[in-house]
Amino acid sequence: MKVAVVGASGYTGLELLRILLRHPEFEIAAVTSEQRAGRDVGDVFPALRGRIDLRYEAVDPAALAGRVELAFTALPHAASARAVAALRDAGVRVVDLSADFRLHSLDTYQQWYGEHPVPARLAEAVYGLPELHRDALRTAQLVAAPGCYPTSALLPLAPLLRAGLVETRGIHIDAKSGVSGAGRTLADGYLFGELDGNSHAYKPGYTHRHAPEIEQEASLVAGAEVRVTFVPHLLPITRGMVTSVYVRPRGGDADRARRALHDAYDREPFVRVLPEGETPAIASVRGTNFCDVALFPDARNDTWILLSALDNLGKGASGQAVQCANLMRGLPEESGLLEAPLVP
Amino acid sequence: MKVAVVGASGYTGLELLRILLRHPEFEIAAVTSEQRAGRDVGDVFPALRGRIDLRYEAVDPAALAGRVELAFTALPHAASARAVAALRDAGVRVVDLSADFRLHSLDTYQQWYGEHPVPARLAEAVYGLPELHRDALRTAQLVAAPGCYPTSALLPLAPLLRAGLVETRGIHIDAKSGVSGAGRTLADGYLFGELDGNSHAYKPGYTHRHAPEIEQEASLVAGAEVRVTFVPHLLPITRGMVTSVYVRPRGGDADRARRALHDAYDREPFVRVLPEGETPAIASVRGTNFCDVALFPDARNDTWILLSALDNLGKGASGQAVQCANLMRGLPEESGLLEAPLVP
Amino acid sequence: MKVAVVGASGYTGLELLRILLRHPEFEIAAVTSEQRAGRDVGDVFPALRGRIDLRYEAVDPAALAGRVELAFTALPHAASARAVAALRDAGVRVVDLSADFRLHSLDTYQQWYGEHPVPARLAEAVYGLPELHRDALRTAQLVAAPGCYPTSALLPLAPLLRAGLVETRGIHIDAKSGVSGAGRTLADGYLFGELDGNSHAYKPGYTHRHAPEIEQEASLVAGAEVRVTFVPHLLPITRGMVTSVYVRPRGGDADRARRALHDAYDREPFVRVLPEGETPAIASVRGTNFCDVALFPDARNDTWILLSALDNLGKGASGQAVQCANLMRGLPEESGLLEAPLVP
Amino acid sequence: MKVAVVGASGYTGLELLRILLRHPEFEIAAVTSEQRAGRDVGDVFPALRGRIDLRYEAVDPAALAGRVELAFTALPHAASARAVAALRDAGVRVVDLSADFRLHSLDTYQQWYGEHPVPARLAEAVYGLPELHRDALRTAQLVAAPGCYPTSALLPLAPLLRAGLVETRGIHIDAKSGVSGAGRTLADGYLFGELDGNSHAYKPGYTHRHAPEIEQEASLVAGAEVRVTFVPHLLPITRGMVTSVYVRPRGGDADRARRALHDAYDREPFVRVLPEGETPAIASVRGTNFCDVALFPDARNDTWILLSALDNLGKGASGQAVQCANLMRGLPEESGLLEAPLVP
Repeated sequence: MKVAVVGASGYTGLELLRILLRHPEFEIAAVTSEQRAGRDVGDVFPALRGRIDLRYEAVDPAALAGRVELAFTALPHAASARAVAALRDAGVRVVDLSADFRLHSLDTYQQWYGEHPVPARLAEAVYGLPELHRDALRTAQLVAAPGCYPTSALLPLAPLLRAGLVETRGIHIDAKSGVSGAGRTLADGYLFGELDGNSHAYKPGYTHRHAPEIEQEASLVAGAEVRVTFVPHLLPITRGMVTSVYVRPRGGDADRARRALHDAYDREPFVRVLPEGETPAIASVRGTNFCDVALFPDARNDTWILLSALDNLGKGASGQAVQCANLMRGLPEESGLLEAPLVP
Repeated sequence: MKVAVVGASGYTGLELLRILLRHPEFEIAAVTSEQRAGRDVGDVFPALRGRIDLRYEAVDPAALAGRVELAFTALPHAASARAVAALRDAGVRVVDLSADFRLHSLDTYQQWYGEHPVPARLAEAVYGLPELHRDALRTAQLVAAPGCYPTSALLPLAPLLRAGLVETRGIHIDAKSGVSGAGRTLADGYLFGELDGNSHAYKPGYTHRHAPEIEQEASLVAGAEVRVTFVPHLLPITRGMVTSVYVRPRGGDADRARRALHDAYDREPFVRVLPEGETPAIASVRGTNFCDVALFPDARNDTWILLSALDNLGKGASGQAVQCANLMRGLPEESGLLEAPLVP
Repeated sequence: MKVAVVGASGYTGLELLRILLRHPEFEIAAVTSEQRAGRDVGDVFPALRGRIDLRYEAVDPAALAGRVELAFTALPHAASARAVAALRDAGVRVVDLSADFRLHSLDTYQQWYGEHPVPARLAEAVYGLPELHRDALRTAQLVAAPGCYPTSALLPLAPLLRAGLVETRGIHIDAKSGVSGAGRTLADGYLFGELDGNSHAYKPGYTHRHAPEIEQEASLVAGAEVRVTFVPHLLPITRGMVTSVYVRPRGGDADRARRALHDAYDREPFVRVLPEGETPAIASVRGTNFCDVALFPDARNDTWILLSALDNLGKGASGQAVQCANLMRGLPEESGLLEAPLVP
Repeated sequence: MKVAVVGASGYTGLELLRILLRHPEFEIAAVTSEQRAGRDVGDVFPALRGRIDLRYEAVDPAALAGRVELAFTALPHAASARAVAALRDAGVRVVDLSADFRLHSLDTYQQWYGEHPVPARLAEAVYGLPELHRDALRTAQLVAAPGCYPTSALLPLAPLLRAGLVETRGIHIDAKSGVSGAGRTLADGYLFGELDGNSHAYKPGYTHRHAPEIEQEASLVAGAEVRVTFVPHLLPITRGMVTSVYVRPRGGDADRARRALHDAYDREPFVRVLPEGETPAIASVRGTNFCDVALFPDARNDTWILLSALDNLGKGASGQAVQCANLMRGLPEESGLLEAPLVP
């Protein structure tokens, strides 16, 4: 089956190529990049030389329509929405990795991102977290792949909210991300000389764009309004993310919570509930589509700690997008995604 | 004034040497190391060649008595207590960097560390956080320099607890530490190949030894029992620590909290309350005795976020120990400690 | 086809598992480890949980004989030789990743490594660099997979020596290796706190064990005694190696040399001769079996510079071992080895 | 004595501030930055908050004339030359950290850097390597502080060339630099995500601008034309550089060479000739003005290996500039420069 990667010159686009190259069913038929149109992919990413023989095209959604059945869009927000609309108009199914179709509320979108270019398409989008929306994804025409932070927070949190085991207010999410989460952005703070040996929080509280996305999905699963305080951090790491979620139990014991996690994930291919006492580590998920989760209760302080680890380009972006595409096409959900972690 | 560094072959010992070399009043008269006795310091740490001309001695507290007025002890716990006791018996004032004299309760100590070799000396010790115990430190004979995690959590938290502005229960401390906090320990998890590109929580909840230390000091300043959930993480960084403390306000607004921080620290030489909106970063404190703190309120979720950054070998260990020693000797508190951060 | 990994708890063993898990023909039938016998692989390497369902066995070559057709041995030298001998006695074909069968001269071996446990087996071994010994490898019963440094030096150097284009004396090899080249060795110098932000040469001149290995193979290909000065360095990198080889041309122009490289490698699946002007980079080969090479002439100073990059666990160890095993079994040489590099 | 730092918003400027803050004689009277004029230094570099109370000014050399006696200029080339000329016209002594006054030959300068804005000033400049030009530096009005690569290559090489112990042709210099050598340049290759876990050569042969600078000074000291092949590399390190220099001995034994190094440097405050067998390491010089050097002979291959390590912002730039300024002012050469390395 032929697919396109629209916006294939950033990190999420590159990771899509890396995964699709080993995918047994998807064939990369087109890669686009405004900036790099006309150049060989192997010249732009020397790492891919000898593995891929494609040239970047300028984005032309109409022209893609006849050539591919599914497109991954990995453009900046707003630009992505426009490309998605054109692709959908041409009948191409789309997995969008931008933020443009993640929020169901147009108001919320506009508050955090500005004008939405194609608000009419919002209703069509399915939030691309298979562990929460698997059935809807199978028939989705437009999938909004989640951000890396929401995935890392929602996967450990959702089973407990769904079961009503924890309070829906006062949730504290402390997340630490590798720099690839910011893409290949050319900014001072992402220079090696600035980030090496350094770490800091940024946009703490309710000021990061992923905060409303977390609340939307958490509220849906809880059936009640969820409030989270969200503090993202930057780590001197290229790939990967660890997240702590602090919740207050609603009286039940921790065994029930642990059972809820196992019930939710023991049959999931990509969520590993760790044995009691083990903490998730980035090294164990690097280069993969895994998300490892664990629960640690602190009864003395009326707190349960949920921990998770994922690769922000894998389960946090491109791996998850391919997992969604597998579902959309009725393929085994693990297709192309069973690579073992790169350790050490 | 002549001082000794007892246990000078680990990272905190080495950092003491680095600071004392530029100290205007303290002269390093003796350095000890069981393992390295007889070797030149410059042979053990080639970095110090040409800057220090001393040979490691075996520990012999009685012999040090006549030669130095003050000793820094940086030995593993229990071993440190024995050396401290001998030095105190010989009349030497001591700043101890181990955990042996930080906990006032012998029961608590024994629960977390095992048998205490010299319980009778516990009462004499002053907890070496100058911002909390400055007056007592001036006349102290035995100072227990705090751990790095407690310093990073207590400095932002103490002014708010003291002013009664926050709840004393349900406090969540999420801390991220560079690996030098573990000393020069030879263990798999500290190998470059294991930690590079990796990060993970460890001992989450109330299982790390610094948790009771935080609660002891927080409770003292609050005048009530404080409960914290503490989740330390390891970062792929050599030096430095960032900490988030999540607290629930007791009704007051965030301006009062911010004012409490400024009132507490604007005249402190080593605690910098950052301008509103700035987050503390390890790069800004690396190699120094600074602790940067900041407050971010999230009123929608009934939460205030306190952030801090320090160098775990500086304000988190050896810098703070020298700050205490300066107080004990009536020297300007900044003596030897005003180096600018090593950036980049 | 069933294979065993003997000594599967170090980094080269782990990398073998990672590659074999995606290999279309080889099935891991046994993994051994003295230290970890009885434990699940997924417990020792949490990264592999959910991807492998095997338990470490103690090494018992006789018992393996009936269960596998081929074994990879990744034990320390001497120990490896003993395991290899037992496996060979039992009729199992072996790819050995230790140094025990790389040197043809028993004298040279004993000078650098000490007593050889099974000197009689030396003659049977084929040096496992497919680009030099492909035909012999197809029928080999015992393959000695090369060290990472020799592979990185020999691949760019061999075509020029073979064509007689460069002097065989006065060759200078300056190599820089990631720390995984040293395996999971627990030593001070490999601690994160010691290696982070650090780099240094070690064993410079003709004192590193890989130097005689380089000279042996270079001399064979040149048909004359080759002399190299070899300076290895440690980099604060987990995986990968870049090497510079300085040679003196024998009068010919650089185009002939470049042509020799292309002639040698344009049909090779894993050696990429870079376009003129591009320098090899570790990021482009990380996690792969590629070796990138390039030539830069400096005619003014009668010098050609050869540059190479490879992953020291890939083409520098386990990837190359699997490439050899593919040849031994008559499989497509790329089987299991076509993963795209992990970038970023 | 009042000094100015002209161009104080890059890494060399920042390092100058860090050193000058602890300098016993120099007082920072002015800091300039076109981009940051009007902003507090502490707002631009939060690390310096509480340590420096200065505001960036726009560059106005005439205005500086009355206020400072000496200026450090750390601007891009050409821009630096213009500022230097204006400062010199106004009678201010200058230590220039750009490349504008390092090359004595106008032709060579123009070949590598383009038009020189003030060629008439070239003759006035003294090359700022105190170990080679100490006497001239004492009375210099304009000092051209060397680049980091030339310092690391020349210091080990000069004593051997001066004594005629090595061939002047066929010298191979393999240098590995931390990224701060490139300043705070905002370019893809310096992003954390691109450099982390990566290393590669760049501009190999005789194509890097520091190559003619090395040849100029090496030829001067040898009294004959010296030819070097120079291969710089980028390391995933912020600060520091290690360099290997491969030379061919002129018949003498290595002891004479080692003696030449000791004769040259045993009384130098900042060049440490390491004990036989030890290799220079970046960690031992980080944050300092030291350059460590060592010699390893490989007689079998008619080669001596010279190794060096320095901090590219210290002895490779700003530390060396202050050392020159100390000489110019008749101060103890070590003033402000005796900080112990930041280890770990």
